[in-house]
Amino acid sequence: MRAAVFDSGVGGLTVVKSLIEHRFFDEIIYFGDTARVPYGTKDKNTIVRYSLEALEFFKNFDPDLLIAACNSVSAHALEELRESATFPVVGVIEPGVLAAKERLEGHEPILVIGTKATISSGQYEELLRQEGFCNLTFQATPLFVPLVEEGILTGPIVQATMDHYFHNLPHPKGIILGCTHFPLLQEALTSYFGPETILIHSGEAICDYLHQALAIEPTNRQPELKLFASESPEKLKRVAREWLRYSSR
Amino acid sequence: MRAAVFDSGVGGLTVVKSLIEHRFFDEIIYFGDTARVPYGTKDKNTIVRYSLEALEFFKNFDPDLLIAACNSVSAHALEELRESATFPVVGVIEPGVLAAKERLEGHEPILVIGTKATISSGQYEELLRQEGFCNLTFQATPLFVPLVEEGILTGPIVQATMDHYFHNLPHPKGIILGCTHFPLLQEALTSYFGPETILIHSGEAICDYLHQALAIEPTNRQPELKLFASESPEKLKRVAREWLRYSSR
Repeated sequence: MRAAVFDSGVGGLTVVKSLIEHRFFDEIIYFGDTARVPYGTKDKNTIVRYSLEALEFFKNFDPDLLIAACNSVSAHALEELRESATFPVVGVIEPGVLAAKERLEGHEPILVIGTKATISSGQYEELLRQEGFCNLTFQATPLFVPLVEEGILTGPIVQATMDHYFHNLPHPKGIILGCTHFPLLQEALTSYFGPETILIHSGEAICDYLHQALAIEPTNRQPELKLFASESPEKLKRVAREWLRYSSR
Repeated sequence: MRAAVFDSGVGGLTVVKSLIEHRFFDEIIYFGDTARVPYGTKDKNTIVRYSLEALEFFKNFDPDLLIAACNSVSAHALEELRESATFPVVGVIEPGVLAAKERLEGHEPILVIGTKATISSGQYEELLRQEGFCNLTFQATPLFVPLVEEGILTGPIVQATMDHYFHNLPHPKGIILGCTHFPLLQEALTSYFGPETILIHSGEAICDYLHQALAIEPTNRQPELKLFASESPEKLKRVAREWLRYSSR
C-alpha cells in the first residue's frame, strides 16, 4: 500500500516516524508545504486552499490513502479533501480522540493543546464531547511550534512558555498533543505536569486507528519513504535524518 | 505622492507608523502577505517569487515608490524587484546602515539582529563594512517574531529568549533592529542592554533616507492609508488600529 502524508512543514515527520515503526505501508509519499508554513496561524479559507493544492500534487502518485498529518488541516479541510479525493482521507483528530477514549475515563480532566487554528475550530471539543468526555480544557500554544522548529525542546524558554500557557489551568490527567510538532516536547511536558500524565500523540493514535478502524495490517517490510517540500527539500531531508534516523530518496 | 509598502505580514506597520508621523506621502498602500507569513524562515527563491507577486499587485495602484518594509525581502529580493518595477524600490537595509553611520563610530561594537533569512544573506555585513564598521556581531533571533505576533513583549519568556540569544555576545554600543517586528521589543531590549544602547529602527531609518537620499519633503497632510492582506485583512486592520492608533479603509 502507498500512503500519502501531508503536513504544513516538517512536523508531520513525527507521524511518519510512527508509520515507519508500525510498517503499515510499502511506500510513504510525504509532502511538506514548507514555502507556506505554518498553517496554524492562518484562517480556514487559506488552509482549505493550500490543502486542495497538496491533494492535486498527491494525485500524481496514485496513493491508496491520504493522511492529513497536520492538525490544522484535519480541523479545517478534512471535509473538502474528502469531497475532492478519489481515495480515503484520514485526519489526526478523530484518531486522537479515540486514543483518549482508550486511555482515559470520561470524567478525567483532559487538556487539549494545539495551534490557534486547531483549537479555534472546536473539532476536538465536538468529538471529545461525543465520546462522553466532560472535563475539558483547551489551550492554543502557538509558541511551541517555533520552539520545536528552532530545536529548543527543554530549558528556560520552554519552562517560561509552559508557565505562560499552563499556570492557570487545572491539572490534567491526560494531554492531547494536537499538533505534530508537540511530541518533540514530550520530555518537557512530562517534566512540567509529572510522569503520571498521559500524553496522546497523533502519530501513535493514527497507527492504532489505521489498524483498528481501517483494518490495515503491518507489512513487516521497511517502507520506502519519498520526501517532497514546496521549498528547501534538503532541509526536510535533514530533519528526517535527525528525527527518523532514516535515509530517504 | 503615493507609496506602496510591502511586508510579509503585519510587521511592516511599524514602518508605516514612521511614514505617517513624517507625513511624506498623500497615500500609503500597504500589502501584507499574511497567507504566507513569515518570510524570514524561507529561502531566497521563495522570497523572490512572493515579492514579484506582490509587485504585480501594487502595479494596479500606480505608486510613485515601493518600500520593501520587510528586511527579508530587502535582503533577498531588492534587485529582482528593481529589475521588474517601473518605479523606484527602496529597501530597509541601506537606510538602516546609513542611520548607524550617523549615530555610531566605525570602531563601536554593533549588533545586528534579524530573521535567519536576513542574517544569512550577509547584506547588513557587506554594507556595514563598506561604511567602515569593523566591530560587528550578527545574531538571528527568529523567536522574536512569533513573540511579537503573540503580543508577548516583556516578561519571563522574552527575558529567557534574550538570554538564549545574547548571553555569549559582546556588549553592543548600537543594535540594528533588522526586522520590522523588533521595534515592539524596544523596551525589553533597552532593559536588557541598558538605556545607553542605541537602537536603530527601520521605520525611522527609512524616513531619514527618504528625506536625505531621495529628497522627499513632508506634505504636512495626514496620509490616506489603504490596507490589503492576502488573508484576514480584518486582522491587519485591527493591528493597525492598535499599533498606529489610526483608522484606515
